[in-house]
Amino acid sequence: LANTIIFATMLLTILGSSGALPAYGRYPTCQVLDVGADMFLIDCGEGAQIQMQQYKIRSNRINHVFISHLHGDHYFGLIGWLNSQSLFKRTKPLHIYAPAKLLAIINLQLEYTLSFIIEFHALQEGQAYTLFENEKYQVFCFPVEHSVPTHGFRFTVKRPNNIINKAAITQYEIPIYYLQKLTMGNDYIKQDGTIIPNHVLTFPKKPDLVYCYTADTLYTESILPYISHCNLLYHEATYTEEHSQLATDRQHSTAKQAATIAKLGMVQQLLIGHYSSKYKNTQQHLAEALTVFEQTTCVHEGYTIEIK
Amino acid sequence: LANTIIFATMLLTILGSSGALPAYGRYPTCQVLDVGADMFLIDCGEGAQIQMQQYKIRSNRINHVFISHLHGDHYFGLIGWLNSQSLFKRTKPLHIYAPAKLLAIINLQLEYTLSFIIEFHALQEGQAYTLFENEKYQVFCFPVEHSVPTHGFRFTVKRPNNIINKAAITQYEIPIYYLQKLTMGNDYIKQDGTIIPNHVLTFPKKPDLVYCYTADTLYTESILPYISHCNLLYHEATYTEEHSQLATDRQHSTAKQAATIAKLGMVQQLLIGHYSSKYKNTQQHLAEALTVFEQTTCVHEGYTIEIK
Repeated sequence: LANTIIFATMLLTILGSSGALPAYGRYPTCQVLDVGADMFLIDCGEGAQIQMQQYKIRSNRINHVFISHLHGDHYFGLIGWLNSQSLFKRTKPLHIYAPAKLLAIINLQLEYTLSFIIEFHALQEGQAYTLFENEKYQVFCFPVEHSVPTHGFRFTVKRPNNIINKAAITQYEIPIYYLQKLTMGNDYIKQDGTIIPNHVLTFPKKPDLVYCYTADTLYTESILPYISHCNLLYHEATYTEEHSQLATDRQHSTAKQAATIAKLGMVQQLLIGHYSSKYKNTQQHLAEALTVFEQTTCVHEGYTIEIK
Repeated sequence: LANTIIFATMLLTILGSSGALPAYGRYPTCQVLDVGADMFLIDCGEGAQIQMQQYKIRSNRINHVFISHLHGDHYFGLIGWLNSQSLFKRTKPLHIYAPAKLLAIINLQLEYTLSFIIEFHALQEGQAYTLFENEKYQVFCFPVEHSVPTHGFRFTVKRPNNIINKAAITQYEIPIYYLQKLTMGNDYIKQDGTIIPNHVLTFPKKPDLVYCYTADTLYTESILPYISHCNLLYHEATYTEEHSQLATDRQHSTAKQAATIAKLGMVQQLLIGHYSSKYKNTQQHLAEALTVFEQTTCVHEGYTIEIK
């Protein structure tokens, strides 16, 4: 148990990097975030279940789905994946966090065929709040600026309060059953009453791991409080500077704008994606983002990154 | 004009060969039938629009869509393709022939965003009848036996009544404007009143081209009247003989049963597909079908065949 807490990581896999229209082999938006004891599905564009097979995602591990908004390129793959989960005879409940209307869309097509319960949580328009939290994770949503109500998400994997100092616990003969209490900050009291202070037996807590996903959005600094100092930020970058007017008109961002948010938010690393179908490749996106923020990566289908 | 009538063909492209679950790179059912002046979409499983790009299908040419039944692997890709047609600013109306409930599914998701009119034609449960017919084509639907109301389709490209004999029309100096009338059986009357009989100026009519698609079905000889003597039959072959009980239970067919229908129907060629996800490859399907009907092909994504 102690080990699984100490080595908590996040593994993000990109299943779709395309904008509204699939193009040049790029699929619509879909990401999977493996947080160890759970797996989160972040948006679910058409073909998601096919991409999950392609990239060996064991999608029956997914218990929480987050849909940012109801443009088709962010949810048209959900109905197919839900249907397949039923064909695989899933029984575990599934939590879906999405705009309210999605429940009607699911029910109209799958109401009588689902093999499992959907716990549906309608996202509150324009609100920033915690969607769920337990001792291991927190998921928080925040509004972004797009042509329909849209939320970004912040995923936090909590680190243990402290990390076990293996040499010290051997030296002081601390029983195994007590290790978890040490990670939570308790001192150890020996049978003779001697107190071994917690800081002698542990190393200091590591900071929580935070991944932020902006979904589709116009450039807006209103999201900075929610994404600042995160380990990894995904920000959409539909256009290059040549088409910055299109970005404004269609309430999307350019790669340079994504990089500006990353810089202002002082994030550690930036991923950009959601490329318009007008671009055959994304070299120009990367070049423009790098002029503003050095730790930028252009994501493509199958890209994975571990946050630790 | 005369040329396009004389050389009328059908070009069928398979975009998905998988059964209910995508597997081993196989996509759910989708086919495109190019009949020259029009293009027909036959079922539309998830990822259809991505496969259309992959196989260079100019899908804005599609004006008629035929959905056999409302199991997801036959229609979950339609909503994405319709949405993309709107993003491409399509204005041409689109005819959709499908079970009645599909209209509600489309309207719930796309009612306010479609850039074009959908002419929706609800398939009449259990009925065999002509869906539409003009001077060039006929499309006919017939019921098959499956767990939900399901139709197969028969597509006919009509051949001209007669084929121009180029040597004869040169010899008799027939004016160009009269050629189409010759194809329709008229004699030619010269200015001096002499009659040149039609059979002198033309070759006999070639038979119509017929493609039949069974959709998902239990083995049933009730379809023989509709498919008999066609040029090309697609019959589902979800299972091999090893799993023939599954075929019965789930109201699907085995490859051998598909071949039996082809043989009894005296069709020219058979295509089989809709393979269960339990099979990594389809060698066994082919081997079993060939024991009954020699002109059998196992289709896979990107397979094309011209009927002429």
